[in-house]
Amino acid sequence: MTTMTASAYGQLEDRFRRLGALRDAEAMLHWDLATMMPKGGAASRAEQLATLKALRHGLLTAPEVADWLALAGSDGGLDPWQAANLREMRRLHAHATAVDAPLVEALSRATSACEAVWRDARADDDFARVLPSLKALLALVRETAAAKAAALGLSPYDALLDEYEPDGRSAEINAIFADLAQFLPDFLAGVLDTQQAPTAEPEGPFPIDQQRQLGVRFMELVGFDFQHGRLDVSLHPFCGGTPDDVRITTRYREDDFLPALMGVMHETGHALYERGLPVAWRGQPVGDARGMAVHESQSLLIEMQVCRSHEFLAFAAPLVRDAFAGTGPAWEAENLYRHYTRVERGFIRVDADEVTYPAHVILRYELERAMIAGDLDPVDLPGAWADGLKRLLGIVPPSNRLGCLQDIHWYDGAWGYFPTYTLGAMAAAQLFAAACDADASIRPGIARGNFAPLVGWLRANVHGEGSLLPTRELLTQATGRPLAADAFKAHLQRRYLA
Amino acid sequence: MTTMTASAYGQLEDRFRRLGALRDAEAMLHWDLATMMPKGGAASRAEQLATLKALRHGLLTAPEVADWLALAGSDGGLDPWQAANLREMRRLHAHATAVDAPLVEALSRATSACEAVWRDARADDDFARVLPSLKALLALVRETAAAKAAALGLSPYDALLDEYEPDGRSAEINAIFADLAQFLPDFLAGVLDTQQAPTAEPEGPFPIDQQRQLGVRFMELVGFDFQHGRLDVSLHPFCGGTPDDVRITTRYREDDFLPALMGVMHETGHALYERGLPVAWRGQPVGDARGMAVHESQSLLIEMQVCRSHEFLAFAAPLVRDAFAGTGPAWEAENLYRHYTRVERGFIRVDADEVTYPAHVILRYELERAMIAGDLDPVDLPGAWADGLKRLLGIVPPSNRLGCLQDIHWYDGAWGYFPTYTLGAMAAAQLFAAACDADASIRPGIARGNFAPLVGWLRANVHGEGSLLPTRELLTQATGRPLAADAFKAHLQRRYLA
Repeated sequence: MTTMTASAYGQLEDRFRRLGALRDAEAMLHWDLATMMPKGGAASRAEQLATLKALRHGLLTAPEVADWLALAGSDGGLDPWQAANLREMRRLHAHATAVDAPLVEALSRATSACEAVWRDARADDDFARVLPSLKALLALVRETAAAKAAALGLSPYDALLDEYEPDGRSAEINAIFADLAQFLPDFLAGVLDTQQAPTAEPEGPFPIDQQRQLGVRFMELVGFDFQHGRLDVSLHPFCGGTPDDVRITTRYREDDFLPALMGVMHETGHALYERGLPVAWRGQPVGDARGMAVHESQSLLIEMQVCRSHEFLAFAAPLVRDAFAGTGPAWEAENLYRHYTRVERGFIRVDADEVTYPAHVILRYELERAMIAGDLDPVDLPGAWADGLKRLLGIVPPSNRLGCLQDIHWYDGAWGYFPTYTLGAMAAAQLFAAACDADASIRPGIARGNFAPLVGWLRANVHGEGSLLPTRELLTQATGRPLAADAFKAHLQRRYLA
Repeated sequence: MTTMTASAYGQLEDRFRRLGALRDAEAMLHWDLATMMPKGGAASRAEQLATLKALRHGLLTAPEVADWLALAGSDGGLDPWQAANLREMRRLHAHATAVDAPLVEALSRATSACEAVWRDARADDDFARVLPSLKALLALVRETAAAKAAALGLSPYDALLDEYEPDGRSAEINAIFADLAQFLPDFLAGVLDTQQAPTAEPEGPFPIDQQRQLGVRFMELVGFDFQHGRLDVSLHPFCGGTPDDVRITTRYREDDFLPALMGVMHETGHALYERGLPVAWRGQPVGDARGMAVHESQSLLIEMQVCRSHEFLAFAAPLVRDAFAGTGPAWEAENLYRHYTRVERGFIRVDADEVTYPAHVILRYELERAMIAGDLDPVDLPGAWADGLKRLLGIVPPSNRLGCLQDIHWYDGAWGYFPTYTLGAMAAAQLFAAACDADASIRPGIARGNFAPLVGWLRANVHGEGSLLPTRELLTQATGRPLAADAFKAHLQRRYLA
């Protein structure tokens, strides 16, 4: 029996190695689509991606995989990593077998089509143009959610959420978000009352070449390895590629370098996670990142916890000033700090500060749950968006471009993804506090531009763990307790009201 | 029966659409590897490409494909494009199934090993070092050739050639090359006696940005559609990507803009062909380019026939001069023309002019045939190379680095490829002459930078035909006769001795 089960597990590793290579190929083609591809390549790229996805689906759902899964590990002869790998294989298999091949392919095609239309619709602030594609896509997403809900014994929304955030459940999220939604309005009002405005504006223009060079310098400081990755430009910044070839992107404005620089730091946090995943498990499910909330915790830990801190900005200010040959008070560390911790009610999620960001996420979380439930038709999305933002943040967007057209997610098929941003923000605060408690050299290191102690702790406690543990256990092992909002609230109190 | 065969053919179209999408995905990943990928991505990229290739091979050689092929079209109910598509499917299937898996794998391994040793051997001018690997690789290539010969009913060499040049046969090539080999030595001597040297050198440095902008301007003139393609940089220039997303590359030298500019025009010729392939047959074998000789004819038609002509250079010279803010006689059209039609006996094929290039190709063709036939042992290759080059071009290479180590092809497993370069050069001359005969506005158009008449003729007579016809019939339909050397000889006479 041992031989048979070992062999079944070995077969599974072989199969998942191929699946991993196909997924990596898709990741590269997605990166190219967003950074390099001319417009006219969209249709053939959609065909390529749909074909790869369908093949991957076929290889994952083939009858022999179910047989191997039934047999593998039945005698307990697997080590902890193999056992966790098998657990993740089962999870992926359950998701994949819940949906049949034609639906998978239709969804992939509709996604590529909708995403292409969205690019133009957003540029022209023309929601009506993308509405038919969005409705068609949503119909297929709902069909997928229903199929997964039936197979996984979850609600349709949780069935979608589970793909991005394994074991994530909206009941828990509702509780945490309610906590935050209660805390934030008064806190925000307090911050807006008392915060100190920047004393001066760094004067542009800021040439894109210089911005890029500065971004690269900071990436290298933090530990990004350009032998295994790139920095490019895309409309919607992201971290893509593979652990051995991590492709991050940003977008530049000549009149303001501040957002791109922190955007680059944010994606570098994602990149460090990918790059630090366990080498021995490349291509296997247990070697993957743990989920999107943990992934976002790594980007926000670098961007929000570290790079917007007093300690780091005191170190970074001279480098920033020199990069743009700046002079005067605008380039002082304290002034940069005020810029980088400026809190404002704004329309754009990706430009939001960390105090108002959760409101943006809670809005999207509510709206996507309503759309998945069939309670909100996309034709009514602009109105619902305006109502929700008014309620949560007290403002109404003057256009759909500044409203429901701003994010790629829904148009790119990522439903059930949004809550992971704020789960990640809370996990970042909790992890960074634990890291600093565990290693007293981390904060002084950051103040000298030395990220090695911090990254070492993250490698050991998060990155190198891959998907060995469920998120709850990973956080408990690393921080002593499961995810809660208090470390995040304490961080906000300390930074904005102390 | 009609329903059954129609259905079998339909199944084949579905299967080949998937194969086409996979091949397109591989093409994009190859492009990325050569242009964008950081070094550290090599191993994971190799895994992605190997996985895609293996999946493609599996989908092509699966038992059901043989069944469909046996059944499809047996009642003759296919239109000419479908029938041609089926013919091409059979050809691809025959090639894929002719060689068994262990031999394919052994050949793949021997190729990787030999290519790696060759890189160092070439750098160190050490043929002895690569000889064992080359012998091992040749043995497997010969075994492959024998297997394909048996399956396809061809000679071993023709069985290899057939993969690059469908229906290409060495008996015909021998006759054409013999004609050329007789013509060229005296002709070359005459050209070297009478050609006029350039009067001056354009003075650099030539900033790469300007070279790129000029290349883009010329690409647009010729008809390259940047909505469906890109120009980038790679160590070895190539045309890759897909018909709807054509990616060409070049390499720049700051001290000389001449090679990059014509290199860009060469790849643009390839790109026009890919872009002009029949839209209705995207992803199907009949929608593919006709073979490497026709492909090379399209690049050489644009580069050699058109862009190195008096007419075009008279138009182009002011643009070139303005691009680099040049002044003086070096920038006159006549001087650029002399640069671009300079003939020299040289050792390196890729640097050769169009008069001496065939000698390089004929040499390699003779030697690879002898090695495949078992008449030439690789240990004797350096001597045979020296003898051949002396006979064909009157010079003897001072080193193997400038001799039999210069090209990657044999060391990388590409046997039977070399003749397509010169077949392409002859086809280019024959097609351009026919085009100018058919449409009197083509030459005057080129003289005004208007390529529309020429490209229109190529679209109708070559590009849009895809693989509908065998090469022989394609050329006969377009030019009134099959491929011969006379148009090429007439072109050389006119350009170099008139």
